[in-house]
Amino acid sequence: MRSREDWRGHPMRLPSARFASSGDVSVKDPNTLEIASRVLAGEVPAGARLIRWLEDDDPRGAAVLAELYPHTGRARVVGITGAPGAGKSTLAGMLIGELRARGQKVGVVAVDPSSPFSGGAVLGDRIRMQQHAADPGVFIRSMGSRGQHGGLARASFDALLVLDAMGYDTILVETVGVGQEEIEIVSLADTTLIVAVPGLGDEVQAIKAGLMEAGDVFVLNKADRDGAPETRRQLELALHLRTQHHGEGAWIPPVIPAVAARREGGAAVLDAVDAHTQSLRESGEITARRSARAYAVFHKLLRDAAARRLLEAALARPDAAALVEGVRSLSIDPHAAAASLVSRLELAGI
Amino acid sequence: MRSREDWRGHPMRLPSARFASSGDVSVKDPNTLEIASRVLAGEVPAGARLIRWLEDDDPRGAAVLAELYPHTGRARVVGITGAPGAGKSTLAGMLIGELRARGQKVGVVAVDPSSPFSGGAVLGDRIRMQQHAADPGVFIRSMGSRGQHGGLARASFDALLVLDAMGYDTILVETVGVGQEEIEIVSLADTTLIVAVPGLGDEVQAIKAGLMEAGDVFVLNKADRDGAPETRRQLELALHLRTQHHGEGAWIPPVIPAVAARREGGAAVLDAVDAHTQSLRESGEITARRSARAYAVFHKLLRDAAARRLLEAALARPDAAALVEGVRSLSIDPHAAAASLVSRLELAGI
Repeated sequence: MRSREDWRGHPMRLPSARFASSGDVSVKDPNTLEIASRVLAGEVPAGARLIRWLEDDDPRGAAVLAELYPHTGRARVVGITGAPGAGKSTLAGMLIGELRARGQKVGVVAVDPSSPFSGGAVLGDRIRMQQHAADPGVFIRSMGSRGQHGGLARASFDALLVLDAMGYDTILVETVGVGQEEIEIVSLADTTLIVAVPGLGDEVQAIKAGLMEAGDVFVLNKADRDGAPETRRQLELALHLRTQHHGEGAWIPPVIPAVAARREGGAAVLDAVDAHTQSLRESGEITARRSARAYAVFHKLLRDAAARRLLEAALARPDAAALVEGVRSLSIDPHAAAASLVSRLELAGI
Repeated sequence: MRSREDWRGHPMRLPSARFASSGDVSVKDPNTLEIASRVLAGEVPAGARLIRWLEDDDPRGAAVLAELYPHTGRARVVGITGAPGAGKSTLAGMLIGELRARGQKVGVVAVDPSSPFSGGAVLGDRIRMQQHAADPGVFIRSMGSRGQHGGLARASFDALLVLDAMGYDTILVETVGVGQEEIEIVSLADTTLIVAVPGLGDEVQAIKAGLMEAGDVFVLNKADRDGAPETRRQLELALHLRTQHHGEGAWIPPVIPAVAARREGGAAVLDAVDAHTQSLRESGEITARRSARAYAVFHKLLRDAAARRLLEAALARPDAAALVEGVRSLSIDPHAAAASLVSRLELAGI
């Protein structure tokens, strides 16, 4: 196994070494260390199992993750989002090819339900992705839309950590670009790539409303269409307005034209992503972004656990039964019933 | 104003009458009763404002809703879902036309971000919807993807209640058909309509995996395409397997062919929805469905309030700071930090 460094430049201690030399094996589940070892060795079945455990809130997942965590932080995370039909998946496919050509291992976390990666797309798209699915240097994990305790954002961040630990150099996170959680997911990536298409003035409005602040690199896909120069000007103007108050040396998001369906523009897009990564490293902002990502997961986990505990306490109160009955019989409105139960908890000092 | 009955057949007391005759005006905010009155009179600005208040957790929203709640329960709620590209919005447009032709007022809650109703679709779709947008018998409320405290499901249910109180006879809820919340939203409708298209064997698989149990009426849209009879057979077989253990008189979901883009099949689809509504009323299951919907909202509200309270308590602990710092500096993994903080709350008896 090649020697690895984490993103802070520290050499990484692999748990196989720890496994052999340290005396603490007896206090851990040997299976935990075994799985952690396999994940760090990049074994796909072990990685997939760990992601599933984390999704299911299986305690083994958290145990393995605790072992892996010191070995994460090396991968670069690139979020890809944009309006439906902008060609996010096709662009992701082109970027995978470009990253592979540059010798990188690529992980993909597909949060977009209409993505061919997650099986939601039309047949043609799916066939175009087959080549990558068969490439051992590419690991695609689609976040199913059901069965994730704690929501999509947390499950996606967990999957990122696992793919990072598995040794993928760049991890693409594709989300549908609508939905609060989806926007949160991409905006917490190291680099967020917004995919736009020409010809719709509304498009720029929508991006301005929701995603302008989140974008680090803008791709004007389908740039062979009418209206591409105009849309590009509009985007660049909006970006200029956004960044004009930033200090000298601040990153100015570029707008890169591409025609992903014809594999045109991939190198330029990847160069822009690389330049952004470099800029993040030089300014130290990469640490701030990763810190924010970690805190977001922590906050979500804490919130879930808190909700579970207090919800149980609330519903176990003897006076809860009448309220629940009132809600079920449609005689008390849900807002009034919830407010009443919460105020009783407050009175009880819980 | 015409006399109205709720869905249980009870005559509805309008708050205008109550406003005039009862003596409790002094203990309520007159503005609350004013808005409630306007909503019940079907005034769109009042309804839109109430939905916004509820989305924003503005306390005025809950106060008005408490007034309105006894007057809800009359509308029929029809959920529409299916894979991206199945033509859900076109079908919804056709159903609006059919319902209007039968003299009904129609509310639409669009939870699908790619729906033309919510502004996410291509220009052509949006133009096709214009006719309904200008019709005073149709009220379309798109659930934005951001800024909903408490999530999409709760916001959608709240919007349903408001549209119900406003006097819309049938309320269509369109969701993208992927995502846990989206599936929950449609499966809590009175009638859930699944839109499928021919030619994709995988389509049936996807429906089987996620939505088969939730569907009351299946629409095979684009039924003029190759493979329609085969897909219909597959769907009917899957439905037969699903319902074969149900008792006599149980509802067997029909598969209705349609070509929504050419406005073909709308009457048959609506007849099937009407038949299902009738079946729900006869079996009394409509009460169970509405009870489940109310309880789901109550549970979500309670969970949110509980999470907020306990989260604050957890993060205010003096020993939380070191854990948060550990998470932010990437030295403690988020799962371990959250678990540690929760266990300390438990020890403290909170």
